[in-house]
Amino acid sequence: MSDCIFCKMVAKEIPATVVYEDDDVLAFMDIGPIIKGHALVISKKHYDPVTETPDETLARLHGVAKRIAAAQMNGLGADGVNIMQNNGAAAGQVVPHIHVHVIPRFDGDGHHWNWTAKKYENFDEMVELAEKMRKHL
Amino acid sequence: MSDCIFCKMVAKEIPATVVYEDDDVLAFMDIGPIIKGHALVISKKHYDPVTETPDETLARLHGVAKRIAAAQMNGLGADGVNIMQNNGAAAGQVVPHIHVHVIPRFDGDGHHWNWTAKKYENFDEMVELAEKMRKHL
Repeated sequence: MSDCIFCKMVAKEIPATVVYEDDDVLAFMDIGPIIKGHALVISKKHYDPVTETPDETLARLHGVAKRIAAAQMNGLGADGVNIMQNNGAAAGQVVPHIHVHVIPRFDGDGHHWNWTAKKYENFDEMVELAEKMRKHL
Repeated sequence: MSDCIFCKMVAKEIPATVVYEDDDVLAFMDIGPIIKGHALVISKKHYDPVTETPDETLARLHGVAKRIAAAQMNGLGADGVNIMQNNGAAAGQVVPHIHVHVIPRFDGDGHHWNWTAKKYENFDEMVELAEKMRKHL
């Protein structure tokens, strides 16, 4: 897409610090890292959101994300890795071109996701939501 | 693994509210949801972390996560979806059996990830980290 910043990176119209590249996938450094070393893995072809992305493309993206995660552990000494893929502005997605965040994590790095777990009113509420989802699988 | 809570769910020794199941993959409701409808997608076989998980298994997990995301949009009316896979205690992982969080998001749902972007000291610092990662790909 002509107005997509990630498509422009794929086309080399906008520079990127490339970590990995093949015919289908590009991985590059996020210039606003959650933790230094944070990389993005994108498909060269424009897809968005995940529900419109072919399974084969998702397989390729996550195969590369795994390799980047290993490189963060072995090359940067990371103790852990977050792999995150956001869909829609409601989910915090900024660039509407499918991308996988691969974020190296270090013991005591000071970052804390806001992982505030909620509670269901009761068991039936949870079962009801599961049933609604199953009907749409 | 005999002491793994997710393996026990696969073996039906611990109950789970199942959303999807096939020979290789199980998806069930997270009882401590970030947002109600939050599901987990796991491989039936025990792997951990992502770097020790076969590419074919990752492909299967993310194919199912995509279907759950669509079900959250179409069945629950979600406006967006976070798909997240954490590796290591440093990354916030609690159960050491590979699992993909699929979290429905709604406009104005009040949840905000702590997405505090850091800055590199300079361009060279970022390039140096990318180079270290490339050497370990």
